Amino acid sequence: MKLRPNSPIPPQRVQADLRLAEKRRLAPMMKALKAVHSAASPESMAPEDLERQRRGQEVLGRLIAPMAGVEWEPFSLAGMKAAWVRPSRGHDRRHAILYCHGGGYTSGNLGYSRPTASKLAHVTGYEVLSFEYRLAPEHPYPAVVEDALKAWDHLMYLGYGARDVVVAGDSAGGNLALALTHRLKAAGRRLPASLVLFSPWTDMTASGRSYRERQQLDPTLTLDYIRAVTAAYAPGADLTDPGLSPLFGAFDGFPPVLIQAGTHEILLSDSVRLRDRLVAAGVPCRLEVWNGMWHVFQMFPIKKAGEAMDHVGRFLLEQF
Amino acid sequence: MKLRPNSPIPPQRVQADLRLAEKRRLAPMMKALKAVHSAASPESMAPEDLERQRRGQEVLGRLIAPMAGVEWEPFSLAGMKAAWVRPSRGHDRRHAILYCHGGGYTSGNLGYSRPTASKLAHVTGYEVLSFEYRLAPEHPYPAVVEDALKAWDHLMYLGYGARDVVVAGDSAGGNLALALTHRLKAAGRRLPASLVLFSPWTDMTASGRSYRERQQLDPTLTLDYIRAVTAAYAPGADLTDPGLSPLFGAFDGFPPVLIQAGTHEILLSDSVRLRDRLVAAGVPCRLEVWNGMWHVFQMFPIKKAGEAMDHVGRFLLEQF
Repeated sequence: MKLRPNSPIPPQRVQADLRLAEKRRLAPMMKALKAVHSAASPESMAPEDLERQRRGQEVLGRLIAPMAGVEWEPFSLAGMKAAWVRPSRGHDRRHAILYCHGGGYTSGNLGYSRPTASKLAHVTGYEVLSFEYRLAPEHPYPAVVEDALKAWDHLMYLGYGARDVVVAGDSAGGNLALALTHRLKAAGRRLPASLVLFSPWTDMTASGRSYRERQQLDPTLTLDYIRAVTAAYAPGADLTDPGLSPLFGAFDGFPPVLIQAGTHEILLSDSVRLRDRLVAAGVPCRLEVWNGMWHVFQMFPIKKAGEAMDHVGRFLLEQF
Repeated sequence: MKLRPNSPIPPQRVQADLRLAEKRRLAPMMKALKAVHSAASPESMAPEDLERQRRGQEVLGRLIAPMAGVEWEPFSLAGMKAAWVRPSRGHDRRHAILYCHGGGYTSGNLGYSRPTASKLAHVTGYEVLSFEYRLAPEHPYPAVVEDALKAWDHLMYLGYGARDVVVAGDSAGGNLALALTHRLKAAGRRLPASLVLFSPWTDMTASGRSYRERQQLDPTLTLDYIRAVTAAYAPGADLTDPGLSPLFGAFDGFPPVLIQAGTHEILLSDSVRLRDRLVAAGVPCRLEVWNGMWHVFQMFPIKKAGEAMDHVGRFLLEQF
């Protein structure tokens, strides 16, 4: 079809162009994410795998520019790299978010955490504390849970109340948010005000149906990758231990939980079954399953990520 | 005047009898308090003085029965004796009071703290944490401030927020509440929601006018006693150090403060000047000077003590 100089452009053609541009814009990010989520063998983690995963995570973090209007203040927290992320136009001084980044417990660092931490700060108006926990296989379980406890203790030391703090996490970071809450509960300490979990990894035995049924749909995650990072994180361990698979812990007394997952991810069952367990324990819980979305889509610069983050903001407004 | 069997008793005679009964009822308590506040020499603390003070404090604590309807749960806090004091018919689970007992830093223990801690729990509905800090002269400054920090840190560990916690104290305990707040501020930590101070000891240099002008009115305290406990607590120290005399510290950023004192005490200036300093620093502050009342009258089983405690409850309701 030929267009005359001033003839209107058919809207369907604009839409198609936009879709193509969007696909091309996201392609390098999806490619980096695929590198993160690849593993040569489900039995063990080869050094090349690890290097590729961590490089991919690093690239992904840099491709996704952090939000403007958010301040980033790095500091050292009990020997860990950490950062305060704050809305630069002033923030709610009462509440804070402890954010646990993802990366299968084998990759991810403070820089990688920045886009999601910034979005959380932006959408809630709260201060976000992000921290660089030790990674497997160099530091297997429970090193990372101890690091999360240190970050929690730092917030308490500063004088935040447990009930002023939201613990948020994506993927392995969702696992960590739940493991931390189980730990605090076991110690008789007060629990966070609420949990916000993006595609949380709750079952290291990978026993959910989605691991089989969503394989073809999932653009980034593979069961081999899941098995490889599990082996790296908890070699030889009983994977039904709630410290590893928080799904199998007792949830009575847990604070309200918001879970977001995508239809196109093999970890969907980890969210659905967590919701079921929380509801059975009488814990207020909201599960949102986002149509067509993949694992931790919230960190990407796409419209649905913004909408999902808006839901986080509304959920937290209801809690406080 | 002779009364016939059924003639009405003149009301002024009933009043006089009541006053006498009240005086007799309070006499053993006042006697115990005088023993606490006596010292043979202002220069140093003789072992006999110390023994008499501590015995008097013990007797005073036992004479004043703790309130009914308040639970007392002793526990060990980082090696210190401590207790939770809770209204037995349920309590506000959000807020807590850290209570610092008095006794010139040389006497007083957990049992002695019980009547006042119980009154605080009863009138506010909050949990009260009382702790037995180390005493001078065996443990001079800053041991007691470190003990108070441990008690504060325990509340934070449990998950109370700084802004959920009121720090209360009487006499030397008021000094401790202020010294603790100065310390938290210096460490860049969040400060308590508010301070409640009964006849706080704020100036160890004893430079206020009331030390001279109220000597004849004060039924229990003497300047010799003040000087003796000061020498025991801070031997050879610069008494203008804000860790010892919090009056001389910087108060900007302090939370709202309620101060109660009596007209009949040599420490009145310590309250009045604290109020002046707080107001100058822009800190919300309320000073109540109770007519005819003596040092820390709030702990006694008298009507004005109940009224004063009611004021504490109303003040805290305004804060939260």
